[in-house]
Amino acid sequence: MTAKKSAEVIIDGKVYTLSGYEEEGYLQKVGTYINSKIGEFAEMDEFRNLSVDTRHTLIELNIADDYFKAKESVEKLELDMEQKEKEIYDLKHDLIADQLKIEDLEERLKSLETENKELSMQKSKLEASLEDALLGDISN
Amino acid sequence: MTAKKSAEVIIDGKVYTLSGYEEEGYLQKVGTYINSKIGEFAEMDEFRNLSVDTRHTLIELNIADDYFKAKESVEKLELDMEQKEKEIYDLKHDLIADQLKIEDLEERLKSLETENKELSMQKSKLEASLEDALLGDISN
Repeated sequence: MTAKKSAEVIIDGKVYTLSGYEEEGYLQKVGTYINSKIGEFAEMDEFRNLSVDTRHTLIELNIADDYFKAKESVEKLELDMEQKEKEIYDLKHDLIADQLKIEDLEERLKSLETENKELSMQKSKLEASLEDALLGDISN
Repeated sequence: MTAKKSAEVIIDGKVYTLSGYEEEGYLQKVGTYINSKIGEFAEMDEFRNLSVDTRHTLIELNIADDYFKAKESVEKLELDMEQKEKEIYDLKHDLIADQLKIEDLEERLKSLETENKELSMQKSKLEASLEDALLGDISN
């Protein structure tokens, strides 16, 4: 089990001591992200004139929007992954089928080659015997 | 271009009129999510005793954490996708190589079959001629 860590993170100018199982680097990254959100809003006069509650709620909505957009991407990517995995499964299946076909063709080729050699030999023998037979004729 | 929409969303008991290009359904979903976060924290006494600012900051940190976790998943999934795409590319490459091999084997098989037919025919002809020759011998 990881030990609990604690880190001081400055958010909107205030120091917060956050403790948990996250690395300090991660907590600082999250803090920096929230500060940049606050910074974006702070540039708008309308924002500065809002109540503390409403200002925070707008920032919460904005961060939550980032979260839901990322979540949508995760869902989309997970579907794409399923597709790719199915495609890989099918391709591997086709490869095995081709491999079996290649093995079969190679065997048939081998036996045809042996047959071919055998026939050529028989042919030469017959040619020789025929020659002898014909020479025999002449010599008689 | 999509027309700007506006929706009334209740967050932490307050009504906010949000306007933007998002569908109302989406805005309500985001609102519900923020309210559930607030609800989770509100159950803790320590939370209720904190300042409005700190309470909001904790909720912002919590939502931002969800966002960064989702973002990490996106990055991991994107790497996995690259891997899968490479695997698919390689498998397709192997399939093409196998297809070419199969075509070549089939051609060689075909020509060997023709050759063997030819040899068998020549063999039978020679056998017949030899028989005639030998019969000729006997008849003399």
